[in-house]
Amino acid sequence: MAQASPPKFNIRFQPGDIVTTATAGANLMAVAIDAGVHINASCGGAGVCGTCKVLIKEGQVESERTKWLPAKEYEKGIRQACQCWIESDLVVEVLPASRLEKAVIYREQQATAEESLPLVEGWSFQPPAEKYCLSLPPPTMEDNSADLTRLLRVLRQQHNLGNVWLDPVVLPGLAQALRDGDWKVTVTTLTDDAAGVKIINVEPGDTRKKYYSLAFDIGTTAVRGQLLDLNKGKVLAQSIEYNQQISYGEDVISRIVQSQKAGGLKKLQKAVVTTVNKMIGQMAEKARVDSGDICHMVVAANSVMIQLLLGLNPKHLRLSPYVPTVNIVPPVKAKSTGIELGDHVHLYALPLVASYVGGDIVAGVLGTGIYQRDTLTLFIDIGTNGEIVIGNKDWMVTAACSAGPTFEGGGIKHGMIAAAGAIEGFSINPDDCQPQIITIDGEKPKGICGSGLINIAAAMLKAGVISPNGKFNTGLQTDRLRRGDDGYEYVLAYAEETQIDKDIVITEVDLDNLIRSKAAMYAGYKTLARSVGSDCAHMQQVILAGTFGCNIDIENAITIGLLPDLPRDRFVFIGNGSLLGARLTSFSQDLLADGRKIAAMMTNIELSENAAFMDNYMAALFLPHTHAEDFPSVTLDKGGCR
Amino acid sequence: MAQASPPKFNIRFQPGDIVTTATAGANLMAVAIDAGVHINASCGGAGVCGTCKVLIKEGQVESERTKWLPAKEYEKGIRQACQCWIESDLVVEVLPASRLEKAVIYREQQATAEESLPLVEGWSFQPPAEKYCLSLPPPTMEDNSADLTRLLRVLRQQHNLGNVWLDPVVLPGLAQALRDGDWKVTVTTLTDDAAGVKIINVEPGDTRKKYYSLAFDIGTTAVRGQLLDLNKGKVLAQSIEYNQQISYGEDVISRIVQSQKAGGLKKLQKAVVTTVNKMIGQMAEKARVDSGDICHMVVAANSVMIQLLLGLNPKHLRLSPYVPTVNIVPPVKAKSTGIELGDHVHLYALPLVASYVGGDIVAGVLGTGIYQRDTLTLFIDIGTNGEIVIGNKDWMVTAACSAGPTFEGGGIKHGMIAAAGAIEGFSINPDDCQPQIITIDGEKPKGICGSGLINIAAAMLKAGVISPNGKFNTGLQTDRLRRGDDGYEYVLAYAEETQIDKDIVITEVDLDNLIRSKAAMYAGYKTLARSVGSDCAHMQQVILAGTFGCNIDIENAITIGLLPDLPRDRFVFIGNGSLLGARLTSFSQDLLADGRKIAAMMTNIELSENAAFMDNYMAALFLPHTHAEDFPSVTLDKGGCR
Repeated sequence: MAQASPPKFNIRFQPGDIVTTATAGANLMAVAIDAGVHINASCGGAGVCGTCKVLIKEGQVESERTKWLPAKEYEKGIRQACQCWIESDLVVEVLPASRLEKAVIYREQQATAEESLPLVEGWSFQPPAEKYCLSLPPPTMEDNSADLTRLLRVLRQQHNLGNVWLDPVVLPGLAQALRDGDWKVTVTTLTDDAAGVKIINVEPGDTRKKYYSLAFDIGTTAVRGQLLDLNKGKVLAQSIEYNQQISYGEDVISRIVQSQKAGGLKKLQKAVVTTVNKMIGQMAEKARVDSGDICHMVVAANSVMIQLLLGLNPKHLRLSPYVPTVNIVPPVKAKSTGIELGDHVHLYALPLVASYVGGDIVAGVLGTGIYQRDTLTLFIDIGTNGEIVIGNKDWMVTAACSAGPTFEGGGIKHGMIAAAGAIEGFSINPDDCQPQIITIDGEKPKGICGSGLINIAAAMLKAGVISPNGKFNTGLQTDRLRRGDDGYEYVLAYAEETQIDKDIVITEVDLDNLIRSKAAMYAGYKTLARSVGSDCAHMQQVILAGTFGCNIDIENAITIGLLPDLPRDRFVFIGNGSLLGARLTSFSQDLLADGRKIAAMMTNIELSENAAFMDNYMAALFLPHTHAEDFPSVTLDKGGCR
Repeated sequence: MAQASPPKFNIRFQPGDIVTTATAGANLMAVAIDAGVHINASCGGAGVCGTCKVLIKEGQVESERTKWLPAKEYEKGIRQACQCWIESDLVVEVLPASRLEKAVIYREQQATAEESLPLVEGWSFQPPAEKYCLSLPPPTMEDNSADLTRLLRVLRQQHNLGNVWLDPVVLPGLAQALRDGDWKVTVTTLTDDAAGVKIINVEPGDTRKKYYSLAFDIGTTAVRGQLLDLNKGKVLAQSIEYNQQISYGEDVISRIVQSQKAGGLKKLQKAVVTTVNKMIGQMAEKARVDSGDICHMVVAANSVMIQLLLGLNPKHLRLSPYVPTVNIVPPVKAKSTGIELGDHVHLYALPLVASYVGGDIVAGVLGTGIYQRDTLTLFIDIGTNGEIVIGNKDWMVTAACSAGPTFEGGGIKHGMIAAAGAIEGFSINPDDCQPQIITIDGEKPKGICGSGLINIAAAMLKAGVISPNGKFNTGLQTDRLRRGDDGYEYVLAYAEETQIDKDIVITEVDLDNLIRSKAAMYAGYKTLARSVGSDCAHMQQVILAGTFGCNIDIENAITIGLLPDLPRDRFVFIGNGSLLGARLTSFSQDLLADGRKIAAMMTNIELSENAAFMDNYMAALFLPHTHAEDFPSVTLDKGGCR
């Protein structure tokens, strides 16, 4: 007898009122992901982070309480989505703290205006995909050579392009295109260092005015895209979206773990491709461009994101000795990844250097032209994985150091991403130790973001509220300082002042995490500089890339020892160096070649098993540093709040 | 209310007992094609050839009698399949005359043994796909460059192969292949003139022993294939099948017509690809080779067959000025056509010259080395479309002439393909004008094949039974000669001696058709020779290619003026020149390049609108020729049967 199939239930997610069906016993988190409903899940569904909280408003789930869920919340019907198995029709509310907030990625960057940036120079505007308009003599009985033969002959005669080959995808439409255009056609060629010039498209008539490309920065968290007009070298539209892979975990490690599950790699590829497709649609609509007129795309991304986009198993990126599958990525058909563009569109990925130094860094180095100048430059992209480059036109070394999630609010009791309500600005009254806080968008405080954490620590250090070892000065006369569950803590905002009905505090554990993160970054610069016989003090320029880097207060970052103590005019913010490099590469075959040159020229130093790095790290576990002589401009008020 | 769907009926085809379902009102011919049941249909289903006869053994069809169906047959339940619309469950017998007979294509060819053939020389054995075995140093923390970087480095070091690029299909499996093979792998590269050397496959371990390719000759009627061992340069297995496209019409024109119907191009491509896939399976099984170890394939075919295989609309091949889409075909992925081989396998097509001079002819010219020698050669492939090449190492001209279907038995009252029961050998007793006939395989006669027709005409001409104008000598004293529906006819076999219970005759109309066909061929040689200031008499060698060409009796063919009257030792049969050229190309990059050189070097002369051709044709409408001085060795017995 046939087995009865399990019953189907209707699941309604709020807000958004997204309805889907699920079989009995299905995991609620999995059902949400399939339905395109995002629920935060730092641990990727392992049940051990407690961030995926939902309220079961109607219906039954099987779900036991874990230690990540307070009894009070459990009684109210709150559950961890990843620990719920469906038993009936449901109405599920995704709690505010578990939702994606778009604010963070739309946030204005305080990047330097592009005209005053250090930018790459000396390249000619010649995109990798080029268009040529041809007028062919129609065939006659005297000259009835094949369509392709005729086309290649005229391409040689009219544009001096010989030794050209042809992508076979062009063949099925060739005869019709020539005749539809009454023997006038526009040929798109693609130039690729290794394989020469290739015809990738033949369109009827003169389509040279419709000449567009895409530049993408695919980040672990956010994806940024630009639609470019290749005739004008202009950005026509921009888009930013969360990388839909976020549903599978917040950091690259959880993505790699996910990719090892059955079907995981395909799901992750599909997730990011869905994001990219959505953005292409948005930008094309905004710019009133037919996405069929897009001729190529350039992507910059970290090594894990690139391998996932291309469907390459990222397993070995995190296993010693940390080997990527490919560094100089050959151009691939965009369509082969699932990206919805014409059959002829190729995707160029900026080359990567190593498992943790990706195409985003190469793009930043390319865009800023570090590799062209004598100036000894320190390039920093601060994040969970901080990437560092030191070099000039003659040599470059690079390293990645694991700073941990601190700068994104991870591991901090009231840490949060830099969204509305995050405490960012901070000062302390030296007389009574009372704080003044400024939140993003001026909302009532909800937590502390990474740049806020730096500002708070710097102000407290300067005022003597904390000591250089990160411990509170327990002799202070203020009730803001108190003992909490995690030892001493300082109250930044009392419950009634907040959006979360809880005191927002900063604890000694938070400060300890911050110190370890900044020590990892600083030890990175130092180890890398020393590896080439130099020193942080010799850096003639410091370039800060990335969204987080651009929201740092330089002075405060130096005060806590996150950045080296150099003259302030040596620092420059470039904003999203990854997207900058992708855009410029989209404009120039020279830069496409330079990207490969840069990747080949960069020497990667593995810090994780490096003894000097460990020594430098230990020495940096102090505010600003164990060696005060490294930070001559930082003076601390030894007195503390009186 | 929902519309009721039409009822479904079971249709059983015999012989073979193939059962399928069909909706009421479906066309029986279309249902047969979908079910893979072949029914002859010269006209491609237009209802005007009467070859698709079936017997409706059980059930009802709607089908009116046409003039192609005798009333007697209609009463027995015989119908034209293309004129039947299904009204019930059916049992349908495909009548013997409507079935494909495999005998014809399996028939032994009287080709010259390969060692005495004029063969191409001076090429080195280096297939387009090459295998290299590499041992890579495993990555370490000191040397953790990307997998691909490591691979390319070792390829350069161990095999001096630099400037190599990579097919992106290799990337997803690369990391695993390297590790599965414990850092020993076999790389397959593909060399292509225009685009350099490309890595197309990386397999774990040393797989150099598994190194195979395919050579195919895709004919309008039959497809011939060989599975080759690239280590030994040997044929491991052969296969021959009817081209499944035959269900859509017998000649290239009916295929082109079919391709213009909705979905027609895709159906035709699928039909030939199904044939090829079946043959690959047969050959792989026979040779005990895993088809996944096949590294490339080479196909030679006429222009229509190539365009259909590649999915290129063949429309313009038959419209003046007769322009193919492509002559030098770039290598395409076999899989992109539907051929079931590995993702990495490329299909090379021998270049074609013009709409009616295809890659099969280039393959023949290549294989026989005509383009390498001083010897002035006439190369002939006789068929419905006869192709002719004249030239040597310095120049080559070519032309196609439409000889009509005569040589395949078309347009001949009792014409048939060269299968068992076809009258082939023939002589006549000059005393009583009684015939002696020899049939293929010695079966009771069923009809006359093309080579038989030549032999009959030559014997009758020599014996004076017919005059040089193709008319019967009506004064003959024999009851074999009589008046029939089509004027005078000669009885080759009486009904009771045959398999078909009818007298088998040759008529004046048949002879007239033969004369026109041979005149077209001869006018072709002559026009082509004259176009370069030469003459048939100057030909130092005549190469006869193709299955039909190889079954011709040279002496008789000269007697009727189908071949020029040259010393007999100048004639050589090469059998299937198309498959010969494909096989040799499969062995050698030199020959791949030579194929392109040949196609570029051949000048195509269009005969269809050529005034000199028309004059030569008119002069050749005589046996052997109006100008007897062109055929000095042919002497005719003026007396006739006494």
